[in-house]
Amino acid sequence: MKLGTVSVDGEQRIAVAADAGHAVVLYPGLTMADLIEDWGAARAEVERGFEDGAGEAVPVAFLTWLPPVPRPGKVICVALNNSANASRIMSGPAHPATFNKPATSLLGHNRPIRLKKEWGRVHPEPELAVVIGAGPAGAPGADISRDDAMSYVFGYTIINDLTSPTMRAEDTFHYRAIHPRQDGAEGIEYADTWVTYSGRYKGTDGFGPIGPWIATADEIPDPHALTVTCVHERRVVTEDSTRNLTHKVADVISFMSGYQTLEPGDIIAMGTALQASPAGGGAVQNVNLTTLGGRIEVTISGIGTLSNPVQTR
Amino acid sequence: MKLGTVSVDGEQRIAVAADAGHAVVLYPGLTMADLIEDWGAARAEVERGFEDGAGEAVPVAFLTWLPPVPRPGKVICVALNNSANASRIMSGPAHPATFNKPATSLLGHNRPIRLKKEWGRVHPEPELAVVIGAGPAGAPGADISRDDAMSYVFGYTIINDLTSPTMRAEDTFHYRAIHPRQDGAEGIEYADTWVTYSGRYKGTDGFGPIGPWIATADEIPDPHALTVTCVHERRVVTEDSTRNLTHKVADVISFMSGYQTLEPGDIIAMGTALQASPAGGGAVQNVNLTTLGGRIEVTISGIGTLSNPVQTR
Repeated sequence: MKLGTVSVDGEQRIAVAADAGHAVVLYPGLTMADLIEDWGAARAEVERGFEDGAGEAVPVAFLTWLPPVPRPGKVICVALNNSANASRIMSGPAHPATFNKPATSLLGHNRPIRLKKEWGRVHPEPELAVVIGAGPAGAPGADISRDDAMSYVFGYTIINDLTSPTMRAEDTFHYRAIHPRQDGAEGIEYADTWVTYSGRYKGTDGFGPIGPWIATADEIPDPHALTVTCVHERRVVTEDSTRNLTHKVADVISFMSGYQTLEPGDIIAMGTALQASPAGGGAVQNVNLTTLGGRIEVTISGIGTLSNPVQTR
Repeated sequence: MKLGTVSVDGEQRIAVAADAGHAVVLYPGLTMADLIEDWGAARAEVERGFEDGAGEAVPVAFLTWLPPVPRPGKVICVALNNSANASRIMSGPAHPATFNKPATSLLGHNRPIRLKKEWGRVHPEPELAVVIGAGPAGAPGADISRDDAMSYVFGYTIINDLTSPTMRAEDTFHYRAIHPRQDGAEGIEYADTWVTYSGRYKGTDGFGPIGPWIATADEIPDPHALTVTCVHERRVVTEDSTRNLTHKVADVISFMSGYQTLEPGDIIAMGTALQASPAGGGAVQNVNLTTLGGRIEVTISGIGTLSNPVQTR
């Protein structure tokens, strides 16, 4: 099943995909948080609502889309997780490294990405995103084994992890970090260090288009066999496969839950698909949305297409 | 007024400070989110509830404390914002740089900080935190002018921004970033870059003790005249003043809201107070809680004391 959240008269409603271009909007009162919290019980209710409304499917383009989980507790993004990065990494961890995007950065399908010129270069990063479910009854999302990890997946969606390399460069410090003395004596010593802070370059309003659909886990037997395409103004920029993700979904969930409790509705962005199109569309980094404007689209096979117009302000 | 959130029989209740050691717990049904959303209307109700319960003040130590805002939409932390840092910064932005801590990292007063040995060194960072309010009616928290900024402050609390420099070093990449060609031609070029990701070293479960009290804005006429003390096992580690914050509260709110909408209940951690105690307690970086254990306390004048025991697991 494919599920989304739309706004009707300012109220959240669940949308269920009828076909590639149409959705059935369920009656008011159900939220995606409700469905995720107890999908086993809610599924039958959603199916019934879908049957009831099947005669009134609405074209997707006429709906006002919200992020499918409108207010996730966390949006955790895995950095540099594509095999195409390997040759570029001189040193880095063997495990997934992550940063967080705030819920205010998220944007529904079709909603405009409104960029200020002062934010500098802003490029798209097309990514598969995992939506965390309630998991086995009574088992909070901490210290999840690799074997149990997939039972915590509610479904999959699409995120466009917009990034400003201009802000990233600006928010980098070269400084002398304070450490305890290495020789074990009382006191401190300094170490020459670079630190970057992602609050602006990843967390700015509109930097997280997401949706429109969550494909429930049963629809995606193998999340590492999906095609990811990024198109800017009808020009294919990226054509990649989730098979190129270095850290796989189960490994990421298991590793993360060792230090951070995963909760129903949390989103994990699996890392940028960045293999350039064989047609020679360049790299995502070449698509500076601040100057180019236009419409940016991400398609993942089996999930759908996320499309957003850009407005410069 | 000083307000906190406690758990009674698994339910959130508002606590109001009666004196330094006692709190009045209000009747069920009110949450901190309700109070922040419309403090103008809620204040009278809280005052009435406080009068009603004044005969039954409970010692603070007997209560089960939650984060004062249990599930803030964002916890935004300002990096390297103490004048004592100036001599250590070789290059960096002139504006506030920030990172986000997820709500799952937060911990109530007195709740144990449970550290795994594999997380390496973990040290305290005592900080003043701003709790964002609803602001002027009808004005969402975007593009706030410096003059209007203080009208978005609901109150102030205390956060201990626990940090693992071990994880920070592990989650640093030295890599060749992709940029568009500088000469304007089609295609890309590479730039030698360092990037650190804060998901683990700042966002791990328990890395955000916060509270117990929010002192409402009217109680703190000048947030830049507060003493911040950090004590580990009765030894004073830090003795600093919020006057040493480089970027002030109004500037931080105004700058942030230019790229990121601030919402009621959002938390802004203003940056570490790190002037070492004149008594010679060393630096916060010397207090490795993973090996030392014990109890870590942060006191800010006019707000209260946040105290948490450390457990190693």
